[in-house]
Amino acid sequence: MKILVLNGPNLNQLGMREPDIYGLCTLKEIEEKLEQLAGELGVSLDHKQSNHEGQLIDWIHQAPDSYKAILFNPGALAHYSIAIRDAVASVVTPVVEVHMSNVHAREEFRQRLVITPVAAGQISGFGVDSYLLGLRAAVKLAK
Amino acid sequence: MKILVLNGPNLNQLGMREPDIYGLCTLKEIEEKLEQLAGELGVSLDHKQSNHEGQLIDWIHQAPDSYKAILFNPGALAHYSIAIRDAVASVVTPVVEVHMSNVHAREEFRQRLVITPVAAGQISGFGVDSYLLGLRAAVKLAK
Amino acid sequence: MKILVLNGPNLNQLGMREPDIYGLCTLKEIEEKLEQLAGELGVSLDHKQSNHEGQLIDWIHQAPDSYKAILFNPGALAHYSIAIRDAVASVVTPVVEVHMSNVHAREEFRQRLVITPVAAGQISGFGVDSYLLGLRAAVKLAK
Amino acid sequence: MKILVLNGPNLNQLGMREPDIYGLCTLKEIEEKLEQLAGELGVSLDHKQSNHEGQLIDWIHQAPDSYKAILFNPGALAHYSIAIRDAVASVVTPVVEVHMSNVHAREEFRQRLVITPVAAGQISGFGVDSYLLGLRAAVKLAK
Amino acid sequence: MKILVLNGPNLNQLGMREPDIYGLCTLKEIEEKLEQLAGELGVSLDHKQSNHEGQLIDWIHQAPDSYKAILFNPGALAHYSIAIRDAVASVVTPVVEVHMSNVHAREEFRQRLVITPVAAGQISGFGVDSYLLGLRAAVKLAK
Amino acid sequence: MKILVLNGPNLNQLGMREPDIYGLCTLKEIEEKLEQLAGELGVSLDHKQSNHEGQLIDWIHQAPDSYKAILFNPGALAHYSIAIRDAVASVVTPVVEVHMSNVHAREEFRQRLVITPVAAGQISGFGVDSYLLGLRAAVKLAK
Amino acid sequence: MKILVLNGPNLNQLGMREPDIYGLCTLKEIEEKLEQLAGELGVSLDHKQSNHEGQLIDWIHQAPDSYKAILFNPGALAHYSIAIRDAVASVVTPVVEVHMSNVHAREEFRQRLVITPVAAGQISGFGVDSYLLGLRAAVKLAK
Amino acid sequence: MKILVLNGPNLNQLGMREPDIYGLCTLKEIEEKLEQLAGELGVSLDHKQSNHEGQLIDWIHQAPDSYKAILFNPGALAHYSIAIRDAVASVVTPVVEVHMSNVHAREEFRQRLVITPVAAGQISGFGVDSYLLGLRAAVKLAK
Amino acid sequence: MKILVLNGPNLNQLGMREPDIYGLCTLKEIEEKLEQLAGELGVSLDHKQSNHEGQLIDWIHQAPDSYKAILFNPGALAHYSIAIRDAVASVVTPVVEVHMSNVHAREEFRQRLVITPVAAGQISGFGVDSYLLGLRAAVKLAK
Amino acid sequence: MKILVLNGPNLNQLGMREPDIYGLCTLKEIEEKLEQLAGELGVSLDHKQSNHEGQLIDWIHQAPDSYKAILFNPGALAHYSIAIRDAVASVVTPVVEVHMSNVHAREEFRQRLVITPVAAGQISGFGVDSYLLGLRAAVKLAK
Amino acid sequence: MKILVLNGPNLNQLGMREPDIYGLCTLKEIEEKLEQLAGELGVSLDHKQSNHEGQLIDWIHQAPDSYKAILFNPGALAHYSIAIRDAVASVVTPVVEVHMSNVHAREEFRQRLVITPVAAGQISGFGVDSYLLGLRAAVKLAK
Amino acid sequence: MKILVLNGPNLNQLGMREPDIYGLCTLKEIEEKLEQLAGELGVSLDHKQSNHEGQLIDWIHQAPDSYKAILFNPGALAHYSIAIRDAVASVVTPVVEVHMSNVHAREEFRQRLVITPVAAGQISGFGVDSYLLGLRAAVKLAK
Repeated sequence: MKILVLNGPNLNQLGMREPDIYGLCTLKEIEEKLEQLAGELGVSLDHKQSNHEGQLIDWIHQAPDSYKAILFNPGALAHYSIAIRDAVASVVTPVVEVHMSNVHAREEFRQRLVITPVAAGQISGFGVDSYLLGLRAAVKLAK
Repeated sequence: MKILVLNGPNLNQLGMREPDIYGLCTLKEIEEKLEQLAGELGVSLDHKQSNHEGQLIDWIHQAPDSYKAILFNPGALAHYSIAIRDAVASVVTPVVEVHMSNVHAREEFRQRLVITPVAAGQISGFGVDSYLLGLRAAVKLAK
Repeated sequence: MKILVLNGPNLNQLGMREPDIYGLCTLKEIEEKLEQLAGELGVSLDHKQSNHEGQLIDWIHQAPDSYKAILFNPGALAHYSIAIRDAVASVVTPVVEVHMSNVHAREEFRQRLVITPVAAGQISGFGVDSYLLGLRAAVKLAK
Repeated sequence: MKILVLNGPNLNQLGMREPDIYGLCTLKEIEEKLEQLAGELGVSLDHKQSNHEGQLIDWIHQAPDSYKAILFNPGALAHYSIAIRDAVASVVTPVVEVHMSNVHAREEFRQRLVITPVAAGQISGFGVDSYLLGLRAAVKLAK
Repeated sequence: MKILVLNGPNLNQLGMREPDIYGLCTLKEIEEKLEQLAGELGVSLDHKQSNHEGQLIDWIHQAPDSYKAILFNPGALAHYSIAIRDAVASVVTPVVEVHMSNVHAREEFRQRLVITPVAAGQISGFGVDSYLLGLRAAVKLAK
Repeated sequence: MKILVLNGPNLNQLGMREPDIYGLCTLKEIEEKLEQLAGELGVSLDHKQSNHEGQLIDWIHQAPDSYKAILFNPGALAHYSIAIRDAVASVVTPVVEVHMSNVHAREEFRQRLVITPVAAGQISGFGVDSYLLGLRAAVKLAK
Repeated sequence: MKILVLNGPNLNQLGMREPDIYGLCTLKEIEEKLEQLAGELGVSLDHKQSNHEGQLIDWIHQAPDSYKAILFNPGALAHYSIAIRDAVASVVTPVVEVHMSNVHAREEFRQRLVITPVAAGQISGFGVDSYLLGLRAAVKLAK
Repeated sequence: MKILVLNGPNLNQLGMREPDIYGLCTLKEIEEKLEQLAGELGVSLDHKQSNHEGQLIDWIHQAPDSYKAILFNPGALAHYSIAIRDAVASVVTPVVEVHMSNVHAREEFRQRLVITPVAAGQISGFGVDSYLLGLRAAVKLAK
Repeated sequence: MKILVLNGPNLNQLGMREPDIYGLCTLKEIEEKLEQLAGELGVSLDHKQSNHEGQLIDWIHQAPDSYKAILFNPGALAHYSIAIRDAVASVVTPVVEVHMSNVHAREEFRQRLVITPVAAGQISGFGVDSYLLGLRAAVKLAK
Repeated sequence: MKILVLNGPNLNQLGMREPDIYGLCTLKEIEEKLEQLAGELGVSLDHKQSNHEGQLIDWIHQAPDSYKAILFNPGALAHYSIAIRDAVASVVTPVVEVHMSNVHAREEFRQRLVITPVAAGQISGFGVDSYLLGLRAAVKLAK
Repeated sequence: MKILVLNGPNLNQLGMREPDIYGLCTLKEIEEKLEQLAGELGVSLDHKQSNHEGQLIDWIHQAPDSYKAILFNPGALAHYSIAIRDAVASVVTPVVEVHMSNVHAREEFRQRLVITPVAAGQISGFGVDSYLLGLRAAVKLAK
Repeated sequence: MKILVLNGPNLNQLGMREPDIYGLCTLKEIEEKLEQLAGELGVSLDHKQSNHEGQLIDWIHQAPDSYKAILFNPGALAHYSIAIRDAVASVVTPVVEVHMSNVHAREEFRQRLVITPVAAGQISGFGVDSYLLGLRAAVKLAK
């Protein structure tokens, strides 16, 4: 069983600058931690990242052919991309939305979540653990 | 006289999944119906689709060199892409906006139409016929 | 097969005053163009106009007995008459809403469309052609 | 003692179409049930219905000459007719506003009630019983 | 030179009930005072009143044939009738809007004035004098 | 058949202070009037009152075991207690919401009614009669 | 009997620049026209203008000692000066608010009128005639 | 290491009624699943539930003496209880907020989350798994 | 003469945790300072605190029998408890509302004050001195 | 130690007109009461009043040279003068804002308080006692 | 060629207090830097500052007689003075609005800019350099 | 020292169409003017333009390796691209935002500026000079 790990804009910057916001952990290191947990849970992962809204939509469209679930951190697109919302709604593959920071404790415009209503569920605020908990949720939904 | 048929994000999915929302008709079949009507009306069509906002803007910029009108289903970008609005406003080619569903009967956020004020007009709610009526309108405007 | 062409308040003024807003075409001339297209499409039309909200509601109530579809330009009532909305929703006859001007390019209060959610679809911005395209849509829905 | 039973737009359609919304009971049958209860309570009733806002205003103006109370279902005019509100406020006759459906459980625009603040009270959600309870309330107020 | 004096819903009730709101002056007495001033100013008047929005629209449409100006108290329709707004905008006859009460000192919903932007001007708060001042303004505009 | 009469915060104060707001009738006297009508209608009543939101939720949870309907005046909790809304929605027992005053004629914040959408219906503005009419409605629903 | 004519910020610029907005008539010429009418009506006038909110408040405070009414064009302060509103409310002298332009036909922020609710009435949209009509209204109130 | 599992109003009803909303799983069964996972993770749990806002505040105040973290489903209080928000903010014990349903896909008023900004993070939409993932998050934060 | 000192949710935590928000002063120490001032002013005090909205309402209801005034810090309930507002409005005992912090300098949701309009007055921002100043105000009102 | 007593627009009118709003106490009498209390507390006062926003700003700028605290009733400027807000924020002298009336019980626009967030605290609703309590607060802050 | 440098309320305080907000540079030093640049650019400057809205309006009215452009920092009046907006609009002299701080990164009420729409352009966020860049822009516009 | 000149969607159209909006100056000519000024100021520039939001984000991410500052005209993305906002916030390189037109004088939706709060500052309304002034600001920040 394969699960797609999808990261949206700016997440390729994780751990490289602004450690007080993005932490010291790079996207590479997050992927390694996810791989380790995937091994324990008996699933395999593919990792993709793009700063392009259109590219993310293409990958979501193709997901049903190869993946049982999507673990998705949409970054700032979470707050306004109705096009990604529609893409998520158009595929049968369940999507688990994760955010490292507690978006409800940040700027008001980050509390508008347009993708969440069509996702299976959402996890936010636990840093790297948001991804790990999200992987567990995705595996449950994928079965 | 040539007319550009432009389709925005997710419309390549038409007829492939979620038949209750998107119907059973694929984008290919819509294009064939448009070609048949174009023959009757004595115009020729080019068909383009992209999930990338930037690609759609490029095509709109280039349209005045080759086309007399644009038949445009912007998909979900209709609700927030001010960049496409500015592209439409920057070309002299008239744009007919079409939607298969009755966007006014769906979620509230689909009732904010940012491109429509700079389009020539809008047709929504008639399924595939929205495209066919839109082509007739485009031919009238193109003359 | 008969179709009802219904026009709301102020549309009896078409072509008589303010040519920059209402065009030079009178309601009579629009009716003649509609009759010509109706002949081509093999349907017959009845034309009615009133400035009275209650009269329009009465005609909509009676429509199912005689008509297969309604081609309806509600004029300014489109923006606040919940009573007409309820009348449209109460009959099985499909309603095609048309507007000559692009209402989305005018004052903000004209962008609240209370009847549209219960209409089959909407066409706006193509002048007299809004009626002609609307008749084609109505005939399709009526079959 | 006489009481006026007043029904606004679309209520002449009750029981004739859309039984899931309007129930199976016609306005005629409601009037019969009201007559039966009126007999028990020792009052007599007059029944009027109109789809015209202006007609309803005329009847409200004339009510104080003949009636001790008005039992009034304003239909959709409840949500925007400030003119009816002013008519109700201009007569000494107490008005009991009734709605068959629970308007607070329907669309948001049906939760703006412009007449209620100048009515004596309001009853909604009990189907035909809204009328019967309303008649009891009207009789109490009329004494 | 003739001027049309137009009164909207509920104004036929003036002076008959609720003297604290509507004053002791009846519509008849207002008309007599207007006639007296009209005599001084050398103009003649026609007086019309209706509780029906559609009737008021009809009269506004016909005004240009017979009148040089309209003195108009739209009553509560001032706050929501976009159809009357469009009727006023469709005729070349200048319209002077008057209100007896100071609408800005009353309920908030009375502070939305949808007709005023297309009227020539507005006078409110001076009781019967609002009509008399309005007639002077109308005569000036009519010349 | 038993019906639960439930009163929320501050209603134990009825008739004891502020007669211009709360009337001269005490909660005890209301209960006696309800008992008399219950005798006529052949049902028995239990009366409970609390100023504690949690206590009211507990009683609503337990209601299905003993009662066929709930006659409920939630007092000010009507305007913000989503927890009581959820409690009402979680039980099959029908709830009739009553208010002695016409809440739509009071402060704006009293016009937000969060429980009403999940109640069977609502009666407001008739003083003690709101309870008596509500009991008749509850008996009808309970059958 | 004396009446105070009070003009707020920027009105000293009338007729000197931007004739399409402010007309060709200077404040001096308006004052002369007012003087002529004052002579006819048998009252005398004092004219004051200031661009300073505080100066206007001082003059309003002193008005009751010398004047029977105030004819007041507050200019842009009409839209935000609650301090002037309180000054107007604190004196028994009646205030007639006038505007040369139809403020309801201009920018949205000009439709918030904070002084009007405590003025006797308001006249707007008739150019210089707004002042002349306002003087007649002031004389009536002053008697 | 001990962790407090806190459940707010109506959650004692889980699995007992309305299986389509609350699922078939009772609060008891959720507690058993949590106990099993707690055993695996080497922590012990205390379970408390109340429909009383004040009781929940008392327990949160006492938590720092006995617990390293709180796993908290506040139910509907999540949407308006600023008092609980202040209680959560006043203790050093980290709080993990969980919801079984995807609150962002429900009524608009459920999307106002007043406690979340002061919680460590939030998990919603995964049914019973929301609790189990939340326990893992709490254990991580507690260390 | 006796005065009731009433403290709402979370105020029992004062001085025990988060000294930067709640200061170093405990509720006990505030009570001692109040007792000392009460002695000087010749009044006696009763001190009550609860985290339960219903309990606070009960105490307010009982206050008129024993107290001449209430010194009340409602904590976070100040921002949403309309039930407490109604309780305060239902008793003749004057209520002085106090807050230690300057609520207008904090989050926006703390600037909605639902109890203040029915309190005698409000004091906020002076820390413990808010209580002492409030006691002086209460003694003045109690006389 | 000197304290500045600053009064904004219209407060020079206190006690002279409208006793139901402004009370019978003049500004002079308030100053005398403040002087008496100042004597008891061992501080000296300077009294200034202006209807000019700019004058108030000038005085606030100069305050740090001579005063340890400012007792400030900004009158209606409290609701919109961001310039005074910035002046208050620019000086180290603590400012105690006072209002005689309970501004939260008046018009909605009086509940926007733009200066309060940068003041030390606020006292409102206690009439002349608001000043006296405010002086005590100012003396505490000044030490 | 002469240019007017105009500074609004509180800017006379620059560099004297609160260096973290207003920087260490005084208004005098800013004027010296502007004079040096003016010398390089071959223009002469006049410097004026006032805390009075009315004074600023007077100076703007007089500007066309002596100046080719205005370099204007309106301070907090930028956010609400429609009277200054009208003054700027009434003169042909181009106005360059400057702010030292990035107003878009501060409180929400500072993001309403009422003067900017009638200014030639705006520069904000560069501290003293906002003035120097603004002078360059003003010189360009003045030519 | 190198500075990156970044242009967003539609700016490649400058000077080619709609000269009344975009002026006659092409992007190429703007770049030449910037190069000339860069020579005077002793810095070197790189010029990039894209209609793709994702491409712009990539370039911003890479900027810190090669550039000391970014001169950025985001075009219409300025009004909604939170993803670009996050990219700007994630790099230490200072960003100067420029707009050729006065965005505050255009449509209301152009007055929402989501990138500005994390930029160093903003310049708008001076046509090509906005770029030249922006380069001067960037050079100052870059030092």
